Amino acid sequence: MRIARFSIDGNVAFGAVEGEKQDELVLDIIKGIPFADFELSGTKVPVSKVRLLPPVLPNKVVAFGRNYADHAKELGNEVPDAPFAFFKPATSVVGPGDEIQYPSFSQDVHHEAELAVVIGRLCREVPRERVKDVIFGYTCANDVTARDVQKREKQWARAKGFDTSCPLGPWVETGLDVGTASDLTIQLTVNGDQRQLGRTSEMIHSIEDLVVNISEAMTLLPGDVILTGTPAGVGPLHVGDEVAVTIEGIGTLTNKVVKRG
Amino acid sequence: MRIARFSIDGNVAFGAVEGEKQDELVLDIIKGIPFADFELSGTKVPVSKVRLLPPVLPNKVVAFGRNYADHAKELGNEVPDAPFAFFKPATSVVGPGDEIQYPSFSQDVHHEAELAVVIGRLCREVPRERVKDVIFGYTCANDVTARDVQKREKQWARAKGFDTSCPLGPWVETGLDVGTASDLTIQLTVNGDQRQLGRTSEMIHSIEDLVVNISEAMTLLPGDVILTGTPAGVGPLHVGDEVAVTIEGIGTLTNKVVKRG
Repeated sequence: MRIARFSIDGNVAFGAVEGEKQDELVLDIIKGIPFADFELSGTKVPVSKVRLLPPVLPNKVVAFGRNYADHAKELGNEVPDAPFAFFKPATSVVGPGDEIQYPSFSQDVHHEAELAVVIGRLCREVPRERVKDVIFGYTCANDVTARDVQKREKQWARAKGFDTSCPLGPWVETGLDVGTASDLTIQLTVNGDQRQLGRTSEMIHSIEDLVVNISEAMTLLPGDVILTGTPAGVGPLHVGDEVAVTIEGIGTLTNKVVKRG
Repeated sequence: MRIARFSIDGNVAFGAVEGEKQDELVLDIIKGIPFADFELSGTKVPVSKVRLLPPVLPNKVVAFGRNYADHAKELGNEVPDAPFAFFKPATSVVGPGDEIQYPSFSQDVHHEAELAVVIGRLCREVPRERVKDVIFGYTCANDVTARDVQKREKQWARAKGFDTSCPLGPWVETGLDVGTASDLTIQLTVNGDQRQLGRTSEMIHSIEDLVVNISEAMTLLPGDVILTGTPAGVGPLHVGDEVAVTIEGIGTLTNKVVKRG
């Protein structure tokens, strides 16, 4: 099931996305919240009539660095032996169709297409064989990065945490198991030109590895998001660009780059 | 005014702390929330009858590294030209009297006493002269750090973000101006023995610098917390230790170290 979060007439709701053609998608409004028991109301609205929002409002976004060997190499970095993680704050999250605001403190903002894991249950110290039980679903992410700031500053709060640097969406696909999610095509285009292309099977540390690694240290909450690293092909974004992350079996997350007002 | 957050009979409230002697402190319960207009109810409860909670529930905790030269040197690090920041997640925050749980993935957990700035207003790109207007008050923090993990992992999400690694409290002192807060004694004891002693005047980058730096990149929300760095004297904690951070004019934040259950 594809679960979207949206606003309509000033209210926020979740809905199950039905249909295949972009122009004909319909949302069946969810009664309750999707992390617990819920029912479909049967009340349907066309996606074209609503504003899609970030599909979750994470308490925290945990992102892993250098998890595709080709990407580590393209930036001249070694491939790390163990995973390492950083945070993107809730204030950096935007949804499908939202603007990426190019901040004034960087002159080299890059795109990074990533598979995002959405956590469904409060959990800590998750054993490998239970990882599948704590995952709610998967969505697309763009780990937008101020590359110049990242190079200058030892820790990446500003470089990867600025407002609008974490587009998520368009919805959460709950129908993929961990095995399927670990072998999907991930692609990014800028103004229709392909810039990144990889498969999630190229991850150095698997989805299970990452959930085990971070939950060993900290409690994960329903709606928390784990970004799993980006394949090769990262590059600059410019004001006016339209950037789109497409992951096989999930969907396409599109955002336009504007100057921060 | 000292504003504490506490639980009593299963309810959470804010209160103004009255009195000076630890045993005789009284809370005047606040009507409304302290970030907006509020009144004191006149209904008073002794601090000894309640459980103090973290004085704020931050959406994000932004922490600055190496902001005291003597501390940077004691770990063999260079003093950075510009501030650099990392995040501690909301799930790492605990309150005064709460346990610091020694995690199983580290064998070298350290204390770091810090002055914490509590933000009072939604703000971004705060000019230096407006910094005073966005600060709600100050509290004590312990930036508990898995030093061995920090040395191994390039980014510090696990080393500085594990559960219970961000004790805050005992309350927020709202009566200090930025100038006063920039010249306070900061001290840390373990089992009564002094381990850290410094003055906030030794910060390399001032409180104003830090708020300008981080708000240049991202929106700060009421209740967000900025940790301003630790003076020299960091060292290991062991299960059974009682660690106390005392900042002049604010109060003492005490926590006991236990093995994670």
